[in-house]
Amino acid sequence: MSRDGGGRGSRAGAEQKSTTPILLVGSAVTCPDLEYASGFRATDPVVFLQTAVGRFLVVPPLEYGRASRVGRNLEVLTPELLGVPKRRRRAVEEWAWRLLRREAVRRVAVPRMFPHGVAAALLRRGVRVAVAAGEVFPGRAVKTAEEQRKIAAAQQAAVIAMRAAVDLVAQAKIGVSGYLERQGGRLTAEQVRSRIEQVLLEHGCFGRDTIVAGGMAAADPHEIGHGPLAAHEAIVIDIFPQHLEYGYWGDLTRTVARGAPAPALRRMYQAVRAAQTAALSRVRAGARCESVHRAAVEEFRRRGFETRTEGGRPEGFIHGTGHGVGLSIHEAPGVAPGPARLRAGNVITVEPGLYYPGVGGVRLEDTVVVTAKGWRYLAPCEKRFEVGQ
Amino acid sequence: MSRDGGGRGSRAGAEQKSTTPILLVGSAVTCPDLEYASGFRATDPVVFLQTAVGRFLVVPPLEYGRASRVGRNLEVLTPELLGVPKRRRRAVEEWAWRLLRREAVRRVAVPRMFPHGVAAALLRRGVRVAVAAGEVFPGRAVKTAEEQRKIAAAQQAAVIAMRAAVDLVAQAKIGVSGYLERQGGRLTAEQVRSRIEQVLLEHGCFGRDTIVAGGMAAADPHEIGHGPLAAHEAIVIDIFPQHLEYGYWGDLTRTVARGAPAPALRRMYQAVRAAQTAALSRVRAGARCESVHRAAVEEFRRRGFETRTEGGRPEGFIHGTGHGVGLSIHEAPGVAPGPARLRAGNVITVEPGLYYPGVGGVRLEDTVVVTAKGWRYLAPCEKRFEVGQ
Repeated sequence: MSRDGGGRGSRAGAEQKSTTPILLVGSAVTCPDLEYASGFRATDPVVFLQTAVGRFLVVPPLEYGRASRVGRNLEVLTPELLGVPKRRRRAVEEWAWRLLRREAVRRVAVPRMFPHGVAAALLRRGVRVAVAAGEVFPGRAVKTAEEQRKIAAAQQAAVIAMRAAVDLVAQAKIGVSGYLERQGGRLTAEQVRSRIEQVLLEHGCFGRDTIVAGGMAAADPHEIGHGPLAAHEAIVIDIFPQHLEYGYWGDLTRTVARGAPAPALRRMYQAVRAAQTAALSRVRAGARCESVHRAAVEEFRRRGFETRTEGGRPEGFIHGTGHGVGLSIHEAPGVAPGPARLRAGNVITVEPGLYYPGVGGVRLEDTVVVTAKGWRYLAPCEKRFEVGQ
Repeated sequence: MSRDGGGRGSRAGAEQKSTTPILLVGSAVTCPDLEYASGFRATDPVVFLQTAVGRFLVVPPLEYGRASRVGRNLEVLTPELLGVPKRRRRAVEEWAWRLLRREAVRRVAVPRMFPHGVAAALLRRGVRVAVAAGEVFPGRAVKTAEEQRKIAAAQQAAVIAMRAAVDLVAQAKIGVSGYLERQGGRLTAEQVRSRIEQVLLEHGCFGRDTIVAGGMAAADPHEIGHGPLAAHEAIVIDIFPQHLEYGYWGDLTRTVARGAPAPALRRMYQAVRAAQTAALSRVRAGARCESVHRAAVEEFRRRGFETRTEGGRPEGFIHGTGHGVGLSIHEAPGVAPGPARLRAGNVITVEPGLYYPGVGGVRLEDTVVVTAKGWRYLAPCEKRFEVGQ
């Protein structure tokens, strides 16, 4: 799934040794750093603290049993154990304050998205709250072998779902009206999306807002697509599942056409394919993220595909080349302009695309692991534009 | 799905007319208020502002087309349109700051979970940032007829999935080892969960971490359950789907046993059923949330079921009686101790439960709409403890 530029991951390459304790407040959904640091997937908000002497997790009493089973050298606490008075038992800012006081912590680093209500309460009590420049856990962008395996499981599910989706398009008949047909009716974006999400579930993953966008809808990279799919047009299929057990994401995009597409679309597809190859050729540990992005930009320029704003609407190659993938679908490092460099173990997407209103959209995306010498697929998947011939 | 007490919704009853502009920053996942106020489901962070004169949404350029189609009398902007310099184009605090400056707003109210990184940047520029006491949109707890219909769609999917799950348990054979068997193998929590999530998807909903917890696992209300299910034990099935198109949630719990359960479990089930009836009998517009909770507590006490902490672990009726349901699975109002009162149009769960380590757990949960005179089901679902006889 494409993202608008590099985003907040762009400084992740600059790993900083800091002794400032790190404070996190949130759930697994609002703060993926929490699951990364604690191993605990929180449904409701919890408090996490990492100091020079230890790591602490404050959870509601209901979660105490489950949190205690996580292990990972973590001290699990409840508001009651911290002596939070009964009438404040549900105020997470009180949990955080009691924990900081107990551990004699007067200064914390927090992520940008840290809840301001909690920060304001701590500031009033004299705690210094510093917003971290960049990621609070820059190491999160470098995936261990186990994390790579978990992302690969999600990516593998995406590949299987992609094959099922492409089969649906390839096996469709072309009706006299120019729409794709299946079992006597028109093949719709919804049917393809539903098949994809069903296959993902069968493989332990969850996909939502899966993009199946054909024709003019494909020219808007965040339009998920609706209604009947037409022949001879480019259909962008972007599958980004989260593994239900592991919590890690995968990300995969292919563009296909059933029935000969217009020459303009064919040239776009060839350009996107060449841009992806060019970008991937720059991927290796130590390379600047920006140089990977530039390689795609240059390839498009060389082939005459311009990026510009027409009537207030951007067109051409209008997003970054990629982003990190892990416990978030979009995380560090951003493969876009900026000073960051790739590191071995980064898991990134490489997903150039072209979008022209009136013509359509084409995007190709793979998720790869950065290695010392280059990169490797987490799960390879065929690339073919014209299907069903 | 049960929540630890009433939570932050407890002040929502106290609707406050305020002219302070409201500022939101986040995505649909981190800030459900955003979708409530704007009608836009944001994948990546966006900025929303509501002032006395208008409502504004700042989105990445990629999202401009999609956001403009939402309607709802909303001015949609991009960082470019706000004149954000190119090197700051991806900094949401810069989007917020430019928008506030353009609208001459010097003071904003933000929700507790507002990103501190953005608040700190605005504070440095002299903006007064006040954390709202309670909800920023107290009206969100009162659902329109359309919202009720959307929640009912999710709840109906939960009911259908529950029937499929209960059928699996009811049709299981009891093996000589005391485990439930199906098609020659043991019936596991994973199989039942998988069936539930498949049915939800077929009905346009997504369910995750669905609870299928039997025996001792059921005594921990947030344990989702793993492995073979045993006969004669209470199996808690808690289904909380989100509707994929509408974004609204449903919430439903039943407890079943295959093969005669122990008398202690039967008494627990009868008590939970009576407590739910007692609590529901207090539900009506104007009633105190606390009085609904008290009704369940009193019913348990009357039947001799005590709530206490044994060896650091709470047991008995260890959570609130319910919570609001809408664009979040847990939202205002909390049906728990506190000053809040129910209002017509609130959608709440009523879900008393009993949890005793060494015995097991029982919970019954329905999601209902509060009316002037009482309440009504969003989607009714049978209640039966012993199944398959």
